[in-house]
Amino acid sequence: LSVVELVTIGTELLLGETVDSNGAWLARRLAVAGIRVARRTSVGDNADAIREAVRDALERTGRVICTGGLGPTDDDMTRPVVARLLGRPLEPDARTLEDVEARFRRRGLVMAERNRAQADVPRGAEVLRNRRGTAPGLLMEDGASRWVVLLPGVPHEMRTIVEEELLPRLEVRLADRRPIRSRTLRTSGIAESTLAERVSDVVRDAAPLTVAFLPSFAGTDIRLTSWGELDADSVDGALDAMERALRDRVGDHVYGLDGTDLAEVVAEELAARDTRLALAESCTGGLLAKRLTDAAGASRFLIGGVVAYSNQVKRELLGVPAHVLEAEGAVSEETARAMAEGARRVLSADAAVAITGIAGPEGGTADKPVGTVWIAAALAERVTARRFLFPGERDEVRQRSAQAALEALLQLLRSEEP
Amino acid sequence: LSVVELVTIGTELLLGETVDSNGAWLARRLAVAGIRVARRTSVGDNADAIREAVRDALERTGRVICTGGLGPTDDDMTRPVVARLLGRPLEPDARTLEDVEARFRRRGLVMAERNRAQADVPRGAEVLRNRRGTAPGLLMEDGASRWVVLLPGVPHEMRTIVEEELLPRLEVRLADRRPIRSRTLRTSGIAESTLAERVSDVVRDAAPLTVAFLPSFAGTDIRLTSWGELDADSVDGALDAMERALRDRVGDHVYGLDGTDLAEVVAEELAARDTRLALAESCTGGLLAKRLTDAAGASRFLIGGVVAYSNQVKRELLGVPAHVLEAEGAVSEETARAMAEGARRVLSADAAVAITGIAGPEGGTADKPVGTVWIAAALAERVTARRFLFPGERDEVRQRSAQAALEALLQLLRSEEP
Repeated sequence: LSVVELVTIGTELLLGETVDSNGAWLARRLAVAGIRVARRTSVGDNADAIREAVRDALERTGRVICTGGLGPTDDDMTRPVVARLLGRPLEPDARTLEDVEARFRRRGLVMAERNRAQADVPRGAEVLRNRRGTAPGLLMEDGASRWVVLLPGVPHEMRTIVEEELLPRLEVRLADRRPIRSRTLRTSGIAESTLAERVSDVVRDAAPLTVAFLPSFAGTDIRLTSWGELDADSVDGALDAMERALRDRVGDHVYGLDGTDLAEVVAEELAARDTRLALAESCTGGLLAKRLTDAAGASRFLIGGVVAYSNQVKRELLGVPAHVLEAEGAVSEETARAMAEGARRVLSADAAVAITGIAGPEGGTADKPVGTVWIAAALAERVTARRFLFPGERDEVRQRSAQAALEALLQLLRSEEP
Repeated sequence: LSVVELVTIGTELLLGETVDSNGAWLARRLAVAGIRVARRTSVGDNADAIREAVRDALERTGRVICTGGLGPTDDDMTRPVVARLLGRPLEPDARTLEDVEARFRRRGLVMAERNRAQADVPRGAEVLRNRRGTAPGLLMEDGASRWVVLLPGVPHEMRTIVEEELLPRLEVRLADRRPIRSRTLRTSGIAESTLAERVSDVVRDAAPLTVAFLPSFAGTDIRLTSWGELDADSVDGALDAMERALRDRVGDHVYGLDGTDLAEVVAEELAARDTRLALAESCTGGLLAKRLTDAAGASRFLIGGVVAYSNQVKRELLGVPAHVLEAEGAVSEETARAMAEGARRVLSADAAVAITGIAGPEGGTADKPVGTVWIAAALAERVTARRFLFPGERDEVRQRSAQAALEALLQLLRSEEP
């Protein structure tokens, strides 16, 4: 019974002018409350399309939450369309009209006539007051355990109504629900298919948890979800057990949980060891420095960096020997090592990481095709270096290079005998 | 006939863990091509839900584009489900298998057995090659003017297949459509409300074009759209006339059209003048360097930069005098000027731009609150500097700082007598 459908209404969604952040927020908020969204539908500001979408959802699932189309203008038609679909006449609601009028008064404005329609509610509907705008939410029950909720499309109004008015009412109606809960293990440095093979038997026995693999430039995430089969007392234990089983197989590639960024993990590790970092970037052109300074507090561990885009800077600021650049080229193990060592020395750092590669689309050769990247990490006198061949276009090569550099640095830090 | 439905597949969409950016991008891209999206549906990685959603869309509209669920793992089930729905057996496709194997080979990897299934295609399907990943797109015609397209869910793969493989095929199938076309004028250095006032009479007479103001960190965009009222012969003329009228009022703030990045404009200006640039960044921590190297060809004008996060780097690498840092502070006109001059000198550049500020959330004072940023630009012996107080949180302050630095540099370049 704790399954609903979402219908988001607005022509801008069909034109792709806005992402459906209302739908995403609602889905997330409902999941946390243990309510499962079975389907999301978006239609335009069009009476037929709205009626069809709500009718289909009612027939399939019986419980529908709509957002959008409750405003005062002519393209706002959700309320009359749904009222007609449920066979309920619209009638003025005195308290809502008062709320709307008071809202205008407080702002020193006179209510426009067209706002009056916003106080018309379908007969028998429960009004979900809108403290933050003029269009109230509406809850209409249609027989046993069938209902339709209408919410305004303005995000902060919608969210406030959901928190204050809707969720308390759904709690009562969906008393049988169990939490839907997810946990994501973030991995890097291992291909999705290799990962899937290594954990295939664990995944096979995961039920009632489900497992999904989500690849991106940052690596592959493994997401575990309990869809409400487990109750609040046992769900955490099941997720813990599953996490342990996965870590047994691929633990060295797991850098964090849920929203954790690898840059944060590296930052914590550096700060904990009181190790100060310098950067030397060629093809990533500042991307790694940007990532390490996205979060506040980078001054705890980051001294600074050199964007050594030209060979001149590699020579003059980082001290890469001219003969190395000539004999081995800017994209080579020797140059990467000299950049890391140079950055550490010149910036008086404890550790350094260097990236030099061919991000493309130009500059590739048979020997060193686009995507060739050398990464070196230095910690005191120890220097490691590794060659990568990344797929994809310029942006992807750069993103993957920064991620690999963070990984190389983390490995070097963790391999050190304390 | 130029109406389609989108079905995006992925349990994360029902959990609200990700916004449906694929659906939004597709809707937008199709609109530009004159193809209208009638409805968007999102379902989870669940065979019944996928089958129902695709079947319903086929019955309603007859033309369906799906994304997601084509990967190599068990929760990827779009291909077999849709193949069964259309009554087509899956058969190995030799060329696709070759593509997938070659992809692994190029990266020095052996293809995992489970990737083999990605080369199974429904009988009679047209394969839309995927240059950027392993899962190809598929186009299946089902009788007259009914078809289903399957696309992978990885955004950059999906986008490349749409541009290179799908749209050319849809052009042929949907010949009757009138274009929906937009043009965007990008402005910077002028507030949205000032902009709107200056062009208000132009906007009033814009019909049938619509005008939208879209503020962001990068400035305010003015977007003109023809929603299919004008045919292909007259739409460009109408957009041209409107663009001219707007440029008459605010032309000095317009830095480009559509997707133009201010960084590209600066890059062109530098390259055209054969002026070589150096950067000195404190609070933006490499963000400006990253932006200037996002596009290929930055070596034409960019020597490199220094991420001078600590005062030590400001002193030792950029030569900012210790007494300036002590007396005026790191966020001051004098420090910004010394950073720009230092970067120009140390990196042997013709021009330089420097950013020093307080991005927050910590570090603000009564005198220098969070958002205080000094930006200096140097060209030969001339140095300009300006103080900004940016609103917003850390990310916004950093983004706005980089944009303002580009603007300062562009003004300095253009103010020079050639």
